[in-house]
Amino acid sequence: MVPNLITALTGPINELEQRMLDAMPAIERWFRLEWMEHTPPLYSSVDIRNAGFKLAPVDTNLFPGGWNNLTPEMVPLAVQSAMAAIEKICPEARNLLIIPENQTRNPQYLANLVQLQHIFSMAGLNVRIGSIDPEVKETIKLKVGNKELVIEPALRHGRRVGLKYFDPCTILLNNDLSTGAPGILEEVYEQFVLPPLHAGWSVRRKSRHFQSYEEVAKRFGKLMGIDPWLINPMFSSRKGVDFTDGSEHALDELREDVDVMLTKVRRKYKEYGIKETPFVVVKADNGTYGMGVMSVHDAKELRQLSVKTKNQMSLVKDGQQVHDMIIQEGVQTVERMDKEAAEPVVYMIDRYVVGGYYRAHSDKGAEDNLNVPGAHFIPLAFEHGISPGDSVGASAPNRFYMYGVVARLAMLAASYELEATDPDAEIYD
Amino acid sequence: MVPNLITALTGPINELEQRMLDAMPAIERWFRLEWMEHTPPLYSSVDIRNAGFKLAPVDTNLFPGGWNNLTPEMVPLAVQSAMAAIEKICPEARNLLIIPENQTRNPQYLANLVQLQHIFSMAGLNVRIGSIDPEVKETIKLKVGNKELVIEPALRHGRRVGLKYFDPCTILLNNDLSTGAPGILEEVYEQFVLPPLHAGWSVRRKSRHFQSYEEVAKRFGKLMGIDPWLINPMFSSRKGVDFTDGSEHALDELREDVDVMLTKVRRKYKEYGIKETPFVVVKADNGTYGMGVMSVHDAKELRQLSVKTKNQMSLVKDGQQVHDMIIQEGVQTVERMDKEAAEPVVYMIDRYVVGGYYRAHSDKGAEDNLNVPGAHFIPLAFEHGISPGDSVGASAPNRFYMYGVVARLAMLAASYELEATDPDAEIYD
Repeated sequence: MVPNLITALTGPINELEQRMLDAMPAIERWFRLEWMEHTPPLYSSVDIRNAGFKLAPVDTNLFPGGWNNLTPEMVPLAVQSAMAAIEKICPEARNLLIIPENQTRNPQYLANLVQLQHIFSMAGLNVRIGSIDPEVKETIKLKVGNKELVIEPALRHGRRVGLKYFDPCTILLNNDLSTGAPGILEEVYEQFVLPPLHAGWSVRRKSRHFQSYEEVAKRFGKLMGIDPWLINPMFSSRKGVDFTDGSEHALDELREDVDVMLTKVRRKYKEYGIKETPFVVVKADNGTYGMGVMSVHDAKELRQLSVKTKNQMSLVKDGQQVHDMIIQEGVQTVERMDKEAAEPVVYMIDRYVVGGYYRAHSDKGAEDNLNVPGAHFIPLAFEHGISPGDSVGASAPNRFYMYGVVARLAMLAASYELEATDPDAEIYD
Repeated sequence: MVPNLITALTGPINELEQRMLDAMPAIERWFRLEWMEHTPPLYSSVDIRNAGFKLAPVDTNLFPGGWNNLTPEMVPLAVQSAMAAIEKICPEARNLLIIPENQTRNPQYLANLVQLQHIFSMAGLNVRIGSIDPEVKETIKLKVGNKELVIEPALRHGRRVGLKYFDPCTILLNNDLSTGAPGILEEVYEQFVLPPLHAGWSVRRKSRHFQSYEEVAKRFGKLMGIDPWLINPMFSSRKGVDFTDGSEHALDELREDVDVMLTKVRRKYKEYGIKETPFVVVKADNGTYGMGVMSVHDAKELRQLSVKTKNQMSLVKDGQQVHDMIIQEGVQTVERMDKEAAEPVVYMIDRYVVGGYYRAHSDKGAEDNLNVPGAHFIPLAFEHGISPGDSVGASAPNRFYMYGVVARLAMLAASYELEATDPDAEIYD
C-alpha cells in the first residue's frame, strides 16, 4: 500500500499508470517476496520524475533530510513504520542516537532533526542527538518553532559511540558522510549503525545505484510485461573528468559519452513516437544536495562552459573534488505546482511509503535540476476513500500509488546496491 | 506507538496515566520483546473502561466488526498494519477470502465488510467475500453507500475453501462461529484460517481470556511498579447456572459468587480510598454482541429478576443456551460524549493500534453495559503534534496512548489464551 496522496497532475491516467494500478496485487506480492530476500534501508527518500511517457527515479537518498516537510497526517505512518523497523532490527533497543549533519544551523535542517527525533520517540525509544562535528564540544540548545532541540557532542567510549551518560544500542546516521567516515564511527561493531557506513557518499556512487536499479527495473518490467525503459533512465559513467583543465581536449571523452547517450535516447523517442527533445544530465557520481548537476541538450554545449559552471561541476558538498561523472538520460517533469516545474519526493521508512511532497522551483524548467537553492516544498495532501484500483474515469485514481511503486523500486535497488558494496559481506564461492 | 487521538475526557492526567506516559519507551520495548515470543491475533478490538482510578479492558473481540467506524485518517494505518501482518504470516499470498457473519443485512455490518475489503485490498491482495451461510446459494450484490458489495457462496473444493474460480491462500474470519465451526471449515490445513477456529465463541471463554489477562497484568504491573488491580478487573466464574429454573435456590451459588466479588471490590476501594459504590457484572462466559450481560450492586437483586431479564441472561447470539457465567468486577466509565456515558473501543491489526471510537448510549449509565441496541459511535479525531510524553500541564497529553497500552495488553492476553487453548499445539514435556 501507498497512502493515497493528491498529486498536482490531474489529467487522465496514461497506459503505464493504468497498468500499475491494475497490477497492484501482483506488484505488492512481488515486493513482499523481494523483502524476504533483501533488507530495505532503514529510511530513504526518492526524487521522481514523471515525463508522462516515462516515470523514473533520479535520486535515491539514504540519509534523507526534509522530514519536517511531511504533514502531521503522515507522522503516524512514519512512526508505525519505524516501530516495524525497530522490531525487526533491534527489538531490545532502548536508546537511539541520531548523528546529524556537521556545521549546520539551517533552520529547515534543524526542523528535520526535531521531526526525526519525534518519530523515533513516538516509536518508543529514548532518542538523543549527538554531533560528530569536531567543533561541537558542548551541548547546544536551540529553539526550533515551539520545540527545544538539544545537540550534544558524540563521544567514543572504547568500542562504543554515545553521549555522556547515554549508551545507545542503535546509531541513526542523518549525516551522509561526504568527507568519509570519521574515526569516531570506525570499527563500531557492538552497536547497530544505520544506514551502514558504506552508504555514505564517500563510498557510494550514483552509477552503482543505477546499475542496481537497472537490474530491478528489468525484473519488474518482466513482471509487468513492459519495456523497462519506461521506468529506467539510461546512464553511463566516466572516470577522470577534469572540469578545471582548460585544455582543448579535456572534456572530449565526456562529450562523446553525452553524444552516445543522446543518440540512444533519440532512438527510444523515435520507437515510441515521442516528440520531445532529448537531453542528458551530467552529474557528479558521488554528489549530493543537488550539487554538481547539469542538463545538456547537445554535446557541443560542453565546449562553451563558463568558468562558473566548470567550478560548480568540479566541487560538491563539503568542498570535495569530483572527477567521476554519471551521464544519465534526462527525464523531464510534467508536474506543475502553480505553473512551477515540480517533482515528487517520496519518503520511506523500512519497506513502507510514509508520505511525500513536491519540490518546486520558480526559476527552473521541466528539464532542470530542481534540487537547488530556491526550491520550495509543497506537502501532498491525503485523498481519502479512493482505492488504487479505481479505473480511468473514476473521480480520482491514486496516481501517487505509481510514485510509491517507483520509489520502492529505487529503494529496493539501494538494498541490492548496499549488499553488493558491503565491505564486510561474506563471500560464498 | 499509538496514534494520538483526542479523547472525550479532558481533565488532568491522573497518576496512573502519567506513569504510563513517562514509561513509554520501557512499555514499547516490553511489548516488542513480548511479540518476539508470542503471535498477536491478526485483528482485534478491545472495549475499555476508564473509571479514573482504574483502567481496564472489559471485552476483547477477535472477530471485530465496526471497521466502518474508523475515520479515513485511520485507514492508512490499518492498511500498513495489514501489510505487515501479511508479510509475516503469508508473504506469498495473492487471494484473501473474508467469511462474514451469517444472515446479516444489517447496513452497519455491511459497511464494515466494505471497509475490511478495502483495507486488505489496499494492502495488495485480491479480496472477495464468501458466506458460509447455508441460505446463501447464489451471489448477492448489495449497494452499500456508493460502493458495491458482492457476497458469494463459499465452496469447499476437496481440502480447500474458496469461491467459484477463486482459490484463496488465506481465509479471514469475520464470523465469530458462535454456533461452532461448520463442516465447510473443518480440517482446512492447506490454507491459513485467521483467527484460528478455536478463537470462535463456541470454544472461547471470557474467563479463560481474563485468566490470561490477569497474568499479563501482573507482569506489566511488575514492569511499571504498580498494583495490577489498577488495570485488571477481578473475576470468578461459575458453571451450570440455570436462569430458567424458577426454584428458590436456583441462583444461590451465583449469588454467593456475586457477594464474594463485591466484598473483594469493597476491600480494594477501601485500600485506595475510593468512595464509589462497588458493583459486579455477570456475563455469559461465551457471550458476544453484548448479550447476556447484567450489572449487579447487591446479591439480593438476583432474587428479584424479572422473567425478561432471566430470558436475556440465558440466551446469547444465535439462540445459544448459556449456563456458564463470569462474575467480573464492574468498572464504571467516567468518559462522557454529550453527557452520555461512553467507552473507548480500540482497534488493532497485528501488533499495531490503528484507531478507535467511542461507544455511547443515551439511555445507559456509567455502570451499564453500553454494547446494546441504541448505542452509537463517535470516531476519535487525531491530535497532531503532541508527544505522548508531554507532561501534565502540557496543552493536551496523549490520553489515548494509555488506552492503546491497555488494549494491547488485552490483545497480548488473547495471544496467550489462543496459545493455551490451541488444540493442535505441540506439547513439550
